[in-house]
Amino acid sequence: MTPPLALLTDFGLADPWVGVMKGVILSVAPGLSLVDLAHEVPPGDVLAGALHLDAAVDFFPPDTLFLAVVDPGVGTARRALAARVGSWRFVLPDNGLLTAVLERHPLHAAWSAEDPAFHLSSPGRTFEGRDVFAPVAAWWMAGTDPARFGPAVADPIRIPMPRARRVPGGWEGEVLLLDRFGNAVTDLPAPPGAVARAAGVAFPVASTYGAVPAGASLAVEGSTGRLELAVNGGSAATIHGLVRGTPVRLEVPGT
Amino acid sequence: MTPPLALLTDFGLADPWVGVMKGVILSVAPGLSLVDLAHEVPPGDVLAGALHLDAAVDFFPPDTLFLAVVDPGVGTARRALAARVGSWRFVLPDNGLLTAVLERHPLHAAWSAEDPAFHLSSPGRTFEGRDVFAPVAAWWMAGTDPARFGPAVADPIRIPMPRARRVPGGWEGEVLLLDRFGNAVTDLPAPPGAVARAAGVAFPVASTYGAVPAGASLAVEGSTGRLELAVNGGSAATIHGLVRGTPVRLEVPGT
Amino acid sequence: MTPPLALLTDFGLADPWVGVMKGVILSVAPGLSLVDLAHEVPPGDVLAGALHLDAAVDFFPPDTLFLAVVDPGVGTARRALAARVGSWRFVLPDNGLLTAVLERHPLHAAWSAEDPAFHLSSPGRTFEGRDVFAPVAAWWMAGTDPARFGPAVADPIRIPMPRARRVPGGWEGEVLLLDRFGNAVTDLPAPPGAVARAAGVAFPVASTYGAVPAGASLAVEGSTGRLELAVNGGSAATIHGLVRGTPVRLEVPGT
Repeated sequence: MTPPLALLTDFGLADPWVGVMKGVILSVAPGLSLVDLAHEVPPGDVLAGALHLDAAVDFFPPDTLFLAVVDPGVGTARRALAARVGSWRFVLPDNGLLTAVLERHPLHAAWSAEDPAFHLSSPGRTFEGRDVFAPVAAWWMAGTDPARFGPAVADPIRIPMPRARRVPGGWEGEVLLLDRFGNAVTDLPAPPGAVARAAGVAFPVASTYGAVPAGASLAVEGSTGRLELAVNGGSAATIHGLVRGTPVRLEVPGT
Repeated sequence: MTPPLALLTDFGLADPWVGVMKGVILSVAPGLSLVDLAHEVPPGDVLAGALHLDAAVDFFPPDTLFLAVVDPGVGTARRALAARVGSWRFVLPDNGLLTAVLERHPLHAAWSAEDPAFHLSSPGRTFEGRDVFAPVAAWWMAGTDPARFGPAVADPIRIPMPRARRVPGGWEGEVLLLDRFGNAVTDLPAPPGAVARAAGVAFPVASTYGAVPAGASLAVEGSTGRLELAVNGGSAATIHGLVRGTPVRLEVPGT
Repeated sequence: MTPPLALLTDFGLADPWVGVMKGVILSVAPGLSLVDLAHEVPPGDVLAGALHLDAAVDFFPPDTLFLAVVDPGVGTARRALAARVGSWRFVLPDNGLLTAVLERHPLHAAWSAEDPAFHLSSPGRTFEGRDVFAPVAAWWMAGTDPARFGPAVADPIRIPMPRARRVPGGWEGEVLLLDRFGNAVTDLPAPPGAVARAAGVAFPVASTYGAVPAGASLAVEGSTGRLELAVNGGSAATIHGLVRGTPVRLEVPGT
């Protein structure tokens, strides 16, 4: 059974561009199983895209191909990558989107997908999602040896990832992402008994939302293992004004 | 041909969680046909989820599996259900999500899907959509006997459903849902000649939008058989301030 | 391999209606490959739907069926069309949705899909996306001769499409669409060296965003060949107050 092809972009779903990429893919590789990972990545937010990929890959079958386009450098000279990392395949701009996955999984091989034989020639300005990334991904799914896409690449670009620092009495970190429920995902661990402080508010680490009354603030270990700041039944982001980058201090007793 | 698996959640599409559930499903049951029913159910709104399921099931093939996760009680002791109702299969939290479907279709069997052999063990806090509901649904689609998921359940939880009351001269009910166009779906019937009143406005029952001038208020029989309050070419919700729970009185001549 | 069925609607994704249409389709034609083109077309905006279809068709395999429902005239006497245009198939209301595609591709045949044998009979008011368009599309995908759907139609409705006019010194046109990034797609060409003016602002035509500083305004040839007004790293729509219909003048040196 062919593994799925999973798409992640910042194109949104209001315009037809994600659908157009799927048309290109199905023209080359009919019948593929296509899965949408997310298309509402904030425009150009490579860090958010990298974290989304990292949260997803472990749950997909071996050989799944992740086609990810979050590309503030579109039209510049950055490379288009085809890469084997861990058990999976990736086709994406070489701008750091792979950073978080590369921190946990080995890079087996990567290529700069520059051979125009595997691109689409379209009218107008090049739309690289449609004209480069989608057809390269589709040819790879259809069995093309990725070494044919272009020269090997040994050094995919990595971006600085926020990383909590050990300090006396605990950790210092920051808010990485806000989710739909207004929970603030951080770069911190979630030791029992600790208390997180952000925006002047205390968020005691709890095992479940139900451990605090409705409306109370708490911190929980999120589904990716990171500490999340939350309000039981409310939006921590709205209520406490948390945003990407808000500093968070974690006080761990006995440290 | 394998029937489809249809997904309904309140996870939204901005985060990768729906995609991650699909990764889990396709890891167990490759090649399944996956259909998104809705993922923008208001967070924790079990009634809205129940009405969406009820509006959808009749239009899906026999044996379709509905995987629904709207779960304000996540992390509490509520059961995870696998159920056969009518011609379909359901995997969802036992919190009332099935109520509206159960009012119209017979419960054939249900099980508490508690055997961890069919769950995923993941790092961090359990994300039950990913770690419990998705793999149970996938194993069922892959042919596992649902009796293996856990003990039989005879009494799935039901929530109170708003239900219009007969009163002298007509009916009293309320607004159940607002749709994207600003139409207000109610729990009322739609007899010709009747007039609905809500928020101080009269909505005469008409057969089509075109029966009233642009900008005029009207009531129509909606596509699920319920009376809907509408404005021709506008949003009844915005123009008349209708919200979930707004009381609606239906005046039926000669009653 | 069966070609895909691509869906375009203005139903949004908050309600389950797109999913319900897919349930109807998979009941008739199990296992079809379904692709979402866009479901956030502004309600009733036939011109936007027509432009989206036009931007997409060239990138889909031959025989792809486009099921498009943007239908301000629902419930009126307008026809339901099944049509062969260019290499593709279309099922949609006869309200001009095909206009832009018909300007570039030949109409081979069209039928008024009025035979109720290929419709669904549902409770409540007819929901034509679910009860007419979806089953007709599915029966066509399942191999039904479209001539059985109803009588031939020679004259699908066309709507006036905005079209830039040649004027001394250049062109006059307008904003057709705004995309997720706040770029304003126009009906103008994109000759190098030209300058577009809209809302009192100059947008010099550039080959890439990187040709101007961050925050500067520019015009580029969009991925469908049309001139787009943009701000490098920002939203031209928000910053300059561009809306659908904003007049745009293109000054072309030496004309």
